[in-house]
Amino acid sequence: MRLDFAKGHGTRNDFVIFADPDNLVDLKPAQVAYLCDRRGGIGGDGLLRAVRANLVPEWHGPGDGWFMDYRNADGSIAEMCGNGLRVFLRYLAEEGLVDGETVSVGTRAGLRTGSFLPDGRIAVTMGPATFGSEVEVAVGEQTWPARSVDVGNPHAVVVLPDGDLLDRLDLSAAPSWRPTEAFPQGVNTEFVVRTAPGHLRLRVHERGVGETEACGTGVVAAAAAIGDAGHFTVEVKGGTLEVDLTGPEAVLIGPAVVVARGTCLLPN
Amino acid sequence: MRLDFAKGHGTRNDFVIFADPDNLVDLKPAQVAYLCDRRGGIGGDGLLRAVRANLVPEWHGPGDGWFMDYRNADGSIAEMCGNGLRVFLRYLAEEGLVDGETVSVGTRAGLRTGSFLPDGRIAVTMGPATFGSEVEVAVGEQTWPARSVDVGNPHAVVVLPDGDLLDRLDLSAAPSWRPTEAFPQGVNTEFVVRTAPGHLRLRVHERGVGETEACGTGVVAAAAAIGDAGHFTVEVKGGTLEVDLTGPEAVLIGPAVVVARGTCLLPN
Repeated sequence: MRLDFAKGHGTRNDFVIFADPDNLVDLKPAQVAYLCDRRGGIGGDGLLRAVRANLVPEWHGPGDGWFMDYRNADGSIAEMCGNGLRVFLRYLAEEGLVDGETVSVGTRAGLRTGSFLPDGRIAVTMGPATFGSEVEVAVGEQTWPARSVDVGNPHAVVVLPDGDLLDRLDLSAAPSWRPTEAFPQGVNTEFVVRTAPGHLRLRVHERGVGETEACGTGVVAAAAAIGDAGHFTVEVKGGTLEVDLTGPEAVLIGPAVVVARGTCLLPN
Repeated sequence: MRLDFAKGHGTRNDFVIFADPDNLVDLKPAQVAYLCDRRGGIGGDGLLRAVRANLVPEWHGPGDGWFMDYRNADGSIAEMCGNGLRVFLRYLAEEGLVDGETVSVGTRAGLRTGSFLPDGRIAVTMGPATFGSEVEVAVGEQTWPARSVDVGNPHAVVVLPDGDLLDRLDLSAAPSWRPTEAFPQGVNTEFVVRTAPGHLRLRVHERGVGETEACGTGVVAAAAAIGDAGHFTVEVKGGTLEVDLTGPEAVLIGPAVVVARGTCLLPN
């Protein structure tokens, strides 16, 4: 089957994207893995499929817009991805599939709203960030207390005292946590330094992936854990994001770009 | 500038490819790096630009065919790439830019000839493999004698006694060699096990890159260093290659596939 696709990224979190308005493409995990394979396929951290919301049986929200079917690179189903949602909105806008400054999109985590800002960035609602109990996170021999934050997915946020410590962290292996029962499905771990009021610098280890250059929910979780300001600028390896916590839902603001458009064969 | 490109791979050594028949695109290193960037661009181990040979000032061979302008992912100029040459030939054939079963291509290492085999694979001439002195290669605390082999670029080949040893090797850091003056420009290091007469299994560390899934010249160097047969089947991480050493030039045989075609913007 011939597939028209796009490839894009938000703060270097990258995706293969395609429109399947009539929900005709029943993606198998092996097909997603092929498309996301950086050497043997096109390459991406995940895949975004745009389907008309009223044709998605699992979606029970408004049916007049688009649903973001997000898959991890291994083909598994994922609920939401903040960087992915910005790229999804950029793609819809460039393809002429949405218009207006504000667009709502169905996701497995619920309805999300994106706003195209005059400066070219996109702001997306991320749902609320809720706190769990204190936990302990370890990297090698070092341990720190960590805040447990849920942003649709689980996070453990360690606040470090200075940037040197952050730079020197070896995140080539997954951090461990205690008590182990705190995160039975695993956890994303953020290490954050407050460089100035409202300014953070962050590194993130995503469960099942490794250290990544940006994690939208992780950036929201870290800002919520710091919690001394309503608006944060957050430096991640892949660029700069902003988080607004002044409303009922966290809002993530950042760039999103479609880099290429093309066609490929989708294997059966 | 709008660029029509393709992306393809040979044994998972992957490339961004485009045709510039009239030699109009004077690629800057930063542009190559952008195109080869796996997250911020399209992604590849290198870039292949197809130019009419008679328009390439540095080419002094036959002018009636194509020249392969090969660049490393960092934008630096490279002489030749065996896996890249197969992908280059596949691209030319699929675009209708060559016809016939045998096609000669200019490269910075000289004229190379590709043959489209009936089984779908492509055979390419790789020039002769020539031997240098014995050297010593070290990985961590372990050292081995190694054969120095030149296939247009320098190789040090270590023959290991069994596959377990090969699998356990930690190639996350570059192997070192002695005497250091043997390879003033650095060296590609191959570790090879002879699994049966004419059958090899190989891992390779490419200078400036790290461990890779396949290296065409490395496969030729390893076969030449073993040297007990004229024809070898070589298993690498990215697949299976064959090497023929019965003629004056080594011949590398393997798969090559164009995965996607698209358009992108080439930044200035």
